[in-house]
Amino acid sequence: MTESTRTSPADSDAVPTAEPFDVVDLIRTKRSGGPLDSDAIGWLIDAYTRGYVGDEQMASLAMAIFLRGMNRREISDFTLAMIASGERMSFDGLGKPTVDKHSTGGVGDKITLPLAPLVASFGVAVPQLSGRGLGHTGGTLDKLESIPGWQAALSNERMRAILRDVGAVVCAAGSGLAPADKKLYALRDVTGTVECIPLIASSIMSKKIAEGTSALVLDVKFGSGAFLQDIEQSRALARTMVDLGTDAGVATTALLTDMSVPLGRTIGNALEVRESIEVLAGGGPADVVDLTIALAREMLRLAGQPDADPERALRDGSAMDTWRRMIVAQGGDPDAALPMAREQHVVVADRSGVLAEQDALAFGIAAWRLGAGRARAADRVQAGAGVELHVKPGDRVVAGSPLWTLHSDEPKRFDRALAALEGAWSVADTAPERGPLVVERIG
Amino acid sequence: MTESTRTSPADSDAVPTAEPFDVVDLIRTKRSGGPLDSDAIGWLIDAYTRGYVGDEQMASLAMAIFLRGMNRREISDFTLAMIASGERMSFDGLGKPTVDKHSTGGVGDKITLPLAPLVASFGVAVPQLSGRGLGHTGGTLDKLESIPGWQAALSNERMRAILRDVGAVVCAAGSGLAPADKKLYALRDVTGTVECIPLIASSIMSKKIAEGTSALVLDVKFGSGAFLQDIEQSRALARTMVDLGTDAGVATTALLTDMSVPLGRTIGNALEVRESIEVLAGGGPADVVDLTIALAREMLRLAGQPDADPERALRDGSAMDTWRRMIVAQGGDPDAALPMAREQHVVVADRSGVLAEQDALAFGIAAWRLGAGRARAADRVQAGAGVELHVKPGDRVVAGSPLWTLHSDEPKRFDRALAALEGAWSVADTAPERGPLVVERIG
Repeated sequence: MTESTRTSPADSDAVPTAEPFDVVDLIRTKRSGGPLDSDAIGWLIDAYTRGYVGDEQMASLAMAIFLRGMNRREISDFTLAMIASGERMSFDGLGKPTVDKHSTGGVGDKITLPLAPLVASFGVAVPQLSGRGLGHTGGTLDKLESIPGWQAALSNERMRAILRDVGAVVCAAGSGLAPADKKLYALRDVTGTVECIPLIASSIMSKKIAEGTSALVLDVKFGSGAFLQDIEQSRALARTMVDLGTDAGVATTALLTDMSVPLGRTIGNALEVRESIEVLAGGGPADVVDLTIALAREMLRLAGQPDADPERALRDGSAMDTWRRMIVAQGGDPDAALPMAREQHVVVADRSGVLAEQDALAFGIAAWRLGAGRARAADRVQAGAGVELHVKPGDRVVAGSPLWTLHSDEPKRFDRALAALEGAWSVADTAPERGPLVVERIG
Repeated sequence: MTESTRTSPADSDAVPTAEPFDVVDLIRTKRSGGPLDSDAIGWLIDAYTRGYVGDEQMASLAMAIFLRGMNRREISDFTLAMIASGERMSFDGLGKPTVDKHSTGGVGDKITLPLAPLVASFGVAVPQLSGRGLGHTGGTLDKLESIPGWQAALSNERMRAILRDVGAVVCAAGSGLAPADKKLYALRDVTGTVECIPLIASSIMSKKIAEGTSALVLDVKFGSGAFLQDIEQSRALARTMVDLGTDAGVATTALLTDMSVPLGRTIGNALEVRESIEVLAGGGPADVVDLTIALAREMLRLAGQPDADPERALRDGSAMDTWRRMIVAQGGDPDAALPMAREQHVVVADRSGVLAEQDALAFGIAAWRLGAGRARAADRVQAGAGVELHVKPGDRVVAGSPLWTLHSDEPKRFDRALAALEGAWSVADTAPERGPLVVERIG
């Protein structure tokens, strides 16, 4: 296809402008598969943030990026430009190393809850700027808000004070970090340009780099409950983010982890807090413990403590002690009873055998429909809603025994949750062999 | 890339809507290269026209269409949906066949001016709903408006009366035809999605089909001064439009014509009117005459007069007679002197030889810069501005003899026009062989 129709030879006849680039030229360059120059990307993100480049232009460009890609240098420029659109935080002067962890999101993924206090118990600062759930994946803030009194909103000063005194803090990200990303993400959501590795990677990493952490461990998930289901796509996303972090001077590694079945035995806000406390008490489901330990080792290694023993910290109560101080520091009562949903519905096995399948996406959707998640940002979540899993793939099942319990404040929600689970699990004579939870380390 | 993130299993939780489709689903389908269903396309264009689908969503989809294409059935559905967005005209009851002609636009392309009265002189109705120039290609209405008194705006009733009484009418298209196309075209212009065959074809053909002509001849140009420079792209556009017309019951053929050098010896509004009158008087440049005759033969064939002799109608004054009545019917004075630009600048040859090159795009830009065209829709054009070509490729040149004369009301414009011509022409010992003007007939 030729490129002549917008040739602008009468430039001097056009309205004079101080803008150094023409966004249509940039769209056409990317549309043809060409790379965008660093200067052009910097201008583009700035011009979009201040509204000179319109949503319709950015949407067209996002689709061109979706279908044509960006090279490593472009993704890095894109990320730096989004960082430059807002404020940058700094944890210099805390007197201890800072290590953050980010998960691409999954079903039953409560790992931040035991992990942050566990790592902080070794004298490492763990700032966890977290979000709320949208769709079938839960949000860390929603989970912690099921603890009576706990507050997600903190001033920057209070956040620093907790990091200094307790070591771990989980709070809402301020709106000043990477505002271009916020605007672009909302646009991508309505224009079919979400599942694009360069755009996902730059979105996540712009916020993490702007936050000012000195090291970062990424939990990049694949499988039905993950953002990207395909392992190759997830591996590519992990590599892209590790490259971005490294290029920006943040020590970054990633674990590629399996999200084809739910993590642990609970999905839902208060249910997951309860399970996290079990892990901090030295118990809990093996998969949650294993992933918590694997991520803790990575974080402690990046913090300069390669020989630290996170398993001991779970056994000896030091992680639990940090958890309690972390909850108290944000107004929560660690001893208060957690909310329970008003209604329960138990699903029982209709035959004996072995649980062969338990699809993460379907169980995530069931918990969402029970009230644990939200369809729109303004929705409220039910603290007690969710799914409690009595068996996991490979577990023996006896006919008539409970498989899972659905929790909700509204019994009318059970039918649609059960519909989500249809065909999503099976009891058979044998269960297929499962691969490892942590498939690969990248970094 | 996986498609899970916008899985909407909690639909019943979402705001109830009467809309049968989700535009993000349609964008994702096209993004993956899949075809869009007829129902979906019909809904999409309607929803975009009434503002339910936003510009940012349509822009993303347009880029996906640009890069993934549409099949013949989709393009046809897209065109029909744009027609359905507005009114349809009909020329039934005129008592004579209706044949329209559309050119994809070129430099010095004044063919409509002699062609419409020529064909009408055979008792055929020729409704020419035309536009104004933008960029380096001129607009038929701008050209005719250089005739003192001539008016482009007509009511539908007046237009029908002129068609009945004179046979040929050239007027501005009403805003009621294919309003979806108008909205989409403006969007494509600012989002880098103009040069896309399915979108160009459906844009042109939706207006032509809605206009209600029973037959249509397309002049699809290729070469530097054309909308699509590449002959293969132009051929594909021609085939797509012929298919669309045929599918919609409009007898449609296309000529594929060379636009690598300007058509005729004038570029500019009044200059082109003067040359058109020369053709109607039986003279004029050979290329303009040849293309006028070729298109007239096609139109007359579609009107059921395969044996009509358009050359005779130019010789015997019957085409000129129809021209004069056509101009008078729209308030113009066919005997009035045409405007002349206040200033002229003559470019002379610095060596003897043969004119080897005369690049259409560059000469179109020069005429634009002299004031013949506009950079923005609100600009005014100069009636007398433009370029008069004293020689064409293959013509002998003597050192010191005039090559072309630039015309403008503002002498300050000469420098930038001359700059446009730099490197765009050459005098050599021999001129390269030129291919035929009309390369191919499609239909």
